[in-house]
Amino acid sequence: MSGTVYLVGAGPGAPDLITLRAARLIEAAEIVFHDALVHPDTVALATRAEKIAVGKRCGAHSTAQRFINKRLIDAAGKHASVVRLKGGDPMLFGRAQEEIDALTAAGIRVEIVPGVTAAQAASADLGVSLTRRGISRSVAFATPRVGSEEQPSEWAASLAHVDTAVLYMAAHQARQVAATLMGLGRRGDSPVAIVESASLESKQSYITLGELARQGLEPGTGPTILMFGEVFRAAMSAARLQRRSPTSGSWRQLAGNLAQTR
Amino acid sequence: MSGTVYLVGAGPGAPDLITLRAARLIEAAEIVFHDALVHPDTVALATRAEKIAVGKRCGAHSTAQRFINKRLIDAAGKHASVVRLKGGDPMLFGRAQEEIDALTAAGIRVEIVPGVTAAQAASADLGVSLTRRGISRSVAFATPRVGSEEQPSEWAASLAHVDTAVLYMAAHQARQVAATLMGLGRRGDSPVAIVESASLESKQSYITLGELARQGLEPGTGPTILMFGEVFRAAMSAARLQRRSPTSGSWRQLAGNLAQTR
Repeated sequence: MSGTVYLVGAGPGAPDLITLRAARLIEAAEIVFHDALVHPDTVALATRAEKIAVGKRCGAHSTAQRFINKRLIDAAGKHASVVRLKGGDPMLFGRAQEEIDALTAAGIRVEIVPGVTAAQAASADLGVSLTRRGISRSVAFATPRVGSEEQPSEWAASLAHVDTAVLYMAAHQARQVAATLMGLGRRGDSPVAIVESASLESKQSYITLGELARQGLEPGTGPTILMFGEVFRAAMSAARLQRRSPTSGSWRQLAGNLAQTR
Repeated sequence: MSGTVYLVGAGPGAPDLITLRAARLIEAAEIVFHDALVHPDTVALATRAEKIAVGKRCGAHSTAQRFINKRLIDAAGKHASVVRLKGGDPMLFGRAQEEIDALTAAGIRVEIVPGVTAAQAASADLGVSLTRRGISRSVAFATPRVGSEEQPSEWAASLAHVDTAVLYMAAHQARQVAATLMGLGRRGDSPVAIVESASLESKQSYITLGELARQGLEPGTGPTILMFGEVFRAAMSAARLQRRSPTSGSWRQLAGNLAQTR
């Protein structure tokens, strides 16, 4: 008789952006395996559990992944309730399938608890919806990151015709990403939103695709996502107006002022 | 002095899949405007608030949207804390931008609280990750639904090269959607996962793209999403094996048994 392993999304960063179900499962867990990126306050919800930090969200080697699988299987043999806590949503760039398959093959019951992913938190932080009537009816999440045993992907081609595109784990190759998207037909004046540490410090900036292709990006300290699409044009324009007159307050106030004087 | 309007994601359906922040804001709100699709137990968290049902998640006319905008602005003039509760994530197919723009133009402070969207809950229900090393590194959410004042979109072309595609509000035109995707080069034997009422009753089925193009889909009673991509192939095969030997238990048990006898 083995326990259940819950693959739980820890959300984008802020501890109060996990779900009620996730919080209850963490509180009740006997053992918690968590990604290094999960917020300490979220891990601290596990008052009863042994807490074990395992691989980082991105960049874990496949041997490390196999080792995590084995530890989860072993834990399910000893505990009724095992929580595997992953940043964001387990089913988006979380390598969940490898854990699900290994656990299922071992006859262990698995339940998945979805979580808010970084793109959603970044959109909320910016105050810009990823879809918008008349402008964007499709949103893609992708990553240019390639695993060690993988072929280079066609990530860029997959995004060429999507209205709003969000790239995870792309900050270190931002210049090349922008150049590739321009090569596929995206215009140099297309807006790009950059959000570092969404839902936490949330450093936000706007830049054109052409500028990003020329300048690249200074690597920040927190996880950074790049967002592309016409939905960001109004906010980029407002941010640039504000930069020219820095005493005028936030771009939202400015947008409000502009709208009222029309 | 006006109040703050919180655009809050109510999550995919199950009341315990909202975030802690959402729950606290609903509990503290003085007035709550909620979509008709939001679960009654979620609305019931608003013990202090006047609760007002407004337009459905999809299909609200633009006049209705303008009316909602006006009611939100009026409410912010009278209450410190106004919650606008939307199914799923406000920034994905939630028409949030129209409300943000109207409120901002009226000088009202807006905060967005992200939520788990139906595609994430459906992926969790199926136990199939939307991304998977070597198979899928891009995921798109889109809708073929066109607003009354809009041009028919290029939703299909936008998805042609994406690894995993999720369509919202597409069940009524499923046959045409499948035929269009095949016309763009997706193979007839490509797997399709169909999830109705994700995170609640969660009726799940698998079908090939060719079958969907021939048969279409019986409209269900709950919101239905269609998911396309190679990530679903193993689960579709297991479901079909199980259908041939119906006494063999769930597909997960079956997959476990198969893996153990290898």
